[in-house]
Amino acid sequence: MGESGLLHNPPREAAWEFPPAEFRRRLQGARRRMAAAGIDCLFLTSEKNIRYLTGFHTQIWVSPTRPRYFLLPLTKEPVAIVPATNVWGFRRTTWIADIRSWPAPRPEDDGISLILDALKGFVPAGGKLAAEIGPETRVEMPVGDFLRIRDGLDRVEIVDAGQILRPLRMVKSPEEVDRVGRAAEIGSEGFSRLSSMLHARQSEREVYRRLHLLLTELGADKVPYLVPASGPSGYEQVNMGPSDRVLERGDLLFIDVGLTSHGYFCDFDRNFAIGETTKELREAYARVFAATEAGIQAVRPGRTAAEVWRAMATVLDPHGGADTPIGRMGHGLGLDITEPPSIAPGDSTVLGVGMVLTIEPSLVLPPRAGAGRRLMVHEENIVVTEQGCRLLTRRAAPELPVV
Amino acid sequence: MGESGLLHNPPREAAWEFPPAEFRRRLQGARRRMAAAGIDCLFLTSEKNIRYLTGFHTQIWVSPTRPRYFLLPLTKEPVAIVPATNVWGFRRTTWIADIRSWPAPRPEDDGISLILDALKGFVPAGGKLAAEIGPETRVEMPVGDFLRIRDGLDRVEIVDAGQILRPLRMVKSPEEVDRVGRAAEIGSEGFSRLSSMLHARQSEREVYRRLHLLLTELGADKVPYLVPASGPSGYEQVNMGPSDRVLERGDLLFIDVGLTSHGYFCDFDRNFAIGETTKELREAYARVFAATEAGIQAVRPGRTAAEVWRAMATVLDPHGGADTPIGRMGHGLGLDITEPPSIAPGDSTVLGVGMVLTIEPSLVLPPRAGAGRRLMVHEENIVVTEQGCRLLTRRAAPELPVV
Repeated sequence: MGESGLLHNPPREAAWEFPPAEFRRRLQGARRRMAAAGIDCLFLTSEKNIRYLTGFHTQIWVSPTRPRYFLLPLTKEPVAIVPATNVWGFRRTTWIADIRSWPAPRPEDDGISLILDALKGFVPAGGKLAAEIGPETRVEMPVGDFLRIRDGLDRVEIVDAGQILRPLRMVKSPEEVDRVGRAAEIGSEGFSRLSSMLHARQSEREVYRRLHLLLTELGADKVPYLVPASGPSGYEQVNMGPSDRVLERGDLLFIDVGLTSHGYFCDFDRNFAIGETTKELREAYARVFAATEAGIQAVRPGRTAAEVWRAMATVLDPHGGADTPIGRMGHGLGLDITEPPSIAPGDSTVLGVGMVLTIEPSLVLPPRAGAGRRLMVHEENIVVTEQGCRLLTRRAAPELPVV
Repeated sequence: MGESGLLHNPPREAAWEFPPAEFRRRLQGARRRMAAAGIDCLFLTSEKNIRYLTGFHTQIWVSPTRPRYFLLPLTKEPVAIVPATNVWGFRRTTWIADIRSWPAPRPEDDGISLILDALKGFVPAGGKLAAEIGPETRVEMPVGDFLRIRDGLDRVEIVDAGQILRPLRMVKSPEEVDRVGRAAEIGSEGFSRLSSMLHARQSEREVYRRLHLLLTELGADKVPYLVPASGPSGYEQVNMGPSDRVLERGDLLFIDVGLTSHGYFCDFDRNFAIGETTKELREAYARVFAATEAGIQAVRPGRTAAEVWRAMATVLDPHGGADTPIGRMGHGLGLDITEPPSIAPGDSTVLGVGMVLTIEPSLVLPPRAGAGRRLMVHEENIVVTEQGCRLLTRRAAPELPVV
């Protein structure tokens, strides 16, 4: 199989985010799976998949104006097709030698003719092209253009690139685990410093600003997800906010944090009672803490994601059911804040060393006067090891912290 | 035309990000354009378009796992189809009364059957459905599912929703302009405080951290884009970084900032010479400053984006040409960091009061020993007014600041 010479002889001015061996491992892993699935070429458009295979990383993905494309044929040299403004970055930060460009934005042909030209040499009539069409992926280009490409190919079957990228990205190298670990350490220290600053009469928005600042001071590169949720004796949801709601004595405050360090996410949450709390909340907290423990204990190579779910569900609701509105009790994470697998009853993914997961059980508390059902959600980040797993977050307190 | 009663009688617990009149204006604008184009229904999946029309805003969009859908029929009540975990947020922050949900993630049917059911009542055979398929838009759901929906409809033509959303979102209300203005003020103050902290022997990464912290302290909600670029007597690119490169005396440092305040972006840059500079760079800076002035002066209602481009191009290169690698000299901004129109020779968009634009001329300096061609880029943010335009950023210094 062809492999770019740059991977063996990085140019002097190269500024790669991982050593060449890491990119070789990823490239070989992708090609091995492509060969097994009879796929002639990968066609990638998304920030995270392109970064994963090539190393290209830039904040410009936040703009939807200019798409970027990466073609990885099974046996020939890969090709990046990028806007003129990204050629410099591709040369400097990736191992890709064949970089083609066009003067973007050019809505009438934003790289499409270049893609069709390249694909004709990579995918024979009757061949298979893998694109990001499946669950948890996005085609990060206009769909109209994607269909123009599909219609411009002669009898080519388009299949899901997820079958290649999902298993590959799911297992992290030690360097990748370190990055999630660094993000988790920043988050853990942030929560630790925040806890002494929390009090009644603060608004959720003030809590947001304070923690945002702490995490930035501690070295977070970005804080894409920071959600405080609160309510009298419980929170009803976990993904809206911050709101202008002002904390009161007796409130339960939940904060979920997804921050990045060198591109990799941590994703975990903490609960705080403001001033005082109730027996009901103490017990709910203790139960979900115990479920988290059971989840962590259940993780080991060879177990399935569904088995980890069952270990937690049994603690949450010994009679079965464990009806969580969140739909699962954890997930993978890495370049994305949520990645496969799902810790869910229907997910039979077999855990392997190097997988990074959130362990995230939740409990529903019955409605109270003036409020709907309330939630109790815990979350930690772990990496699967030979022996079981290792915590990347500092473990939450075993009893509901009253601040 | 039907219109939700909630828009006239917001429920008591509503927490909308704009007054009802703003959402009525947007809804009516969308339906007026749909009627004119013979479109039976809008099908939206993207964070920004759904936020624009419904008011739904949450940080959870950072996760690619669960998609969200909004259907706006021409004459019937709109329908939101969202994961169970988002129902609370949709009820609380939007005017949508008909909210349908499924227990996500459920890869085998992530809302698709609900969408098909709803669309059958909204789009007749032979009708037109508008989806986000055109330039500068993304379908924020798996494309495989998008095609399942398309194939599940009986003789329905899918057209670009951009023709509805683009002209609507391009013209901002005073409340929207205020939000961009607040973001620009935070950015301006951040640059002002940063300038006294810059010096040689700092790395680009240190500059990034310092400004990130300043902007967070000043109240930025998110800082999705913060790119420093530097080089000896000039920078070669403007969208990579921060790198570990250490600033030296004589360097030119460029910093581009896109931060949000209540969901709306500013997007502008500043240039700094470290310690000392050259006649060449002073002159290049002065020329691009003059081009920015010409661009600002050229903006007024009735002018086209192309005319504003020409006003700048004439100053940059009186002999014609003005070959900028960036491909344009400014763009719209708002909920996205880059929005239509493009300040480019081929963009005939007629400017109107309330449009928010960046004015962003750039110049190419010839290569130097050991470096490629260098760039000089300036950028300001303006809003089009009856008389011409108003600056939202504090205007850059007329002479290259040496710090």
